[in-house]
Amino acid sequence: MNQLTIIKVGGKVVETPESLDNLLRQFAQIIGHKVLVHGGGRTATQLATRLGIESNLVNGRRITDAEMLKVVTMVYGGLVNKTIVAKLQALGLNALGLTGADLNYMRSEKRPVAEVDYGFVGDVKEVQSDILANLIGQGVVPILAPLTHDKKGNLLNTNADTIAGEAAKAMAKRFDVTLIYCFEKKGVLSDENDDESVIPELSYETFKAYVSDGVIQGGMIPKLENAFEAIQAGVKEVIITRADAIFGGGGTRVR
Amino acid sequence: MNQLTIIKVGGKVVETPESLDNLLRQFAQIIGHKVLVHGGGRTATQLATRLGIESNLVNGRRITDAEMLKVVTMVYGGLVNKTIVAKLQALGLNALGLTGADLNYMRSEKRPVAEVDYGFVGDVKEVQSDILANLIGQGVVPILAPLTHDKKGNLLNTNADTIAGEAAKAMAKRFDVTLIYCFEKKGVLSDENDDESVIPELSYETFKAYVSDGVIQGGMIPKLENAFEAIQAGVKEVIITRADAIFGGGGTRVR
Repeated sequence: MNQLTIIKVGGKVVETPESLDNLLRQFAQIIGHKVLVHGGGRTATQLATRLGIESNLVNGRRITDAEMLKVVTMVYGGLVNKTIVAKLQALGLNALGLTGADLNYMRSEKRPVAEVDYGFVGDVKEVQSDILANLIGQGVVPILAPLTHDKKGNLLNTNADTIAGEAAKAMAKRFDVTLIYCFEKKGVLSDENDDESVIPELSYETFKAYVSDGVIQGGMIPKLENAFEAIQAGVKEVIITRADAIFGGGGTRVR
Repeated sequence: MNQLTIIKVGGKVVETPESLDNLLRQFAQIIGHKVLVHGGGRTATQLATRLGIESNLVNGRRITDAEMLKVVTMVYGGLVNKTIVAKLQALGLNALGLTGADLNYMRSEKRPVAEVDYGFVGDVKEVQSDILANLIGQGVVPILAPLTHDKKGNLLNTNADTIAGEAAKAMAKRFDVTLIYCFEKKGVLSDENDDESVIPELSYETFKAYVSDGVIQGGMIPKLENAFEAIQAGVKEVIITRADAIFGGGGTRVR
């Protein structure tokens, strides 16, 4: 099967022009098919602040009311996505920016209200793997914004890690998929005070042990759960690392 | 040849939820292939004002500085485009939002500085007609935002009438193209004080005569010049009318 590399980069990397340009130059050099999934939360928060819209976070997750949905649609679907697409075209990649609504490639449903009403936030229900695979097969490089839709006319805010994980799972039957989650550390750390204490490989059993010991905590837990779900669905490997270390062979490998 | 209808709708129509929903319902009922080109200038101006960014207009055209380019990228490429895509998907159309950078379908060059420096504004240089025609042939409905790129990494603000005209000309060899420009009047008027004085048909000669008599003036002149250029390039007909009258058979026909 052909190789497919799916890279998810968070806000900080894509929101600084220099680090974005570095990332995109590296990304352009990856051999084989590729997909880029981006965040943009910091820019969304800044724009909301400038517009006098309050950013409400519960357990580190954004509450997306109607006004905030407009902000993230502008920032994720417009500013961040199209800036990346234009820059990659200049590097010779045939980039195409997509939200889940475009070609209906990723459908979600509004998260049910339980303890918290997250507002216009979508839980992914369906990925049209034919559509994504055909584009990739034609040499197109999809640039995925963290927005989905409910096929009832509504856009929904969706976590970029989730988008990357769902895309990777959907492509696992057609490609040898490597999924790379970039964040601010070199990998998953065994000692949060030592940036060099990267855990090189992680099985589900050791992950569970690290969680119960409190070594792995916070936002890293859902990120790794996404990673193990992807492996179970047939993704070849998931690597968690820093954007500038994608090519160093470092980071934490989840198998 | 297959029919292709390209409709360009301006800001007012797409920026009011009710009129947008009406338009999209009508658009969904058009038989055959179709493309929608949208504006969004009013929303861009409103957002710029809320952000304390001044909107500079010279001869009715916007000066696009770096800050304003971000605003139009957010509004045209994100908010307006993706809202339309999500709504059309709910109506069963396989919509795909595009800027000129996406798939590199429309390349432009920054307008040279003559008397006025319009800033980040692009004059269209190349339409990849294969890309657009293949999408349309596959049943995709392209939703075109008024943004192009220079293939050097920069997005450029481009008049939506121009985008529609260039797309129509590029498709004229492969489809029987009808290009419909929607604006706030029922058609081109022979008496600006009488909204019913629609000129039903306009040749290039009568157009020139109306211009020299001062009957046709202002922003209607470049719109009609675009229309005649499209006809010369093989577009079957160009209709200028009001959004709610697309199906009435009225408006001004340019042949």
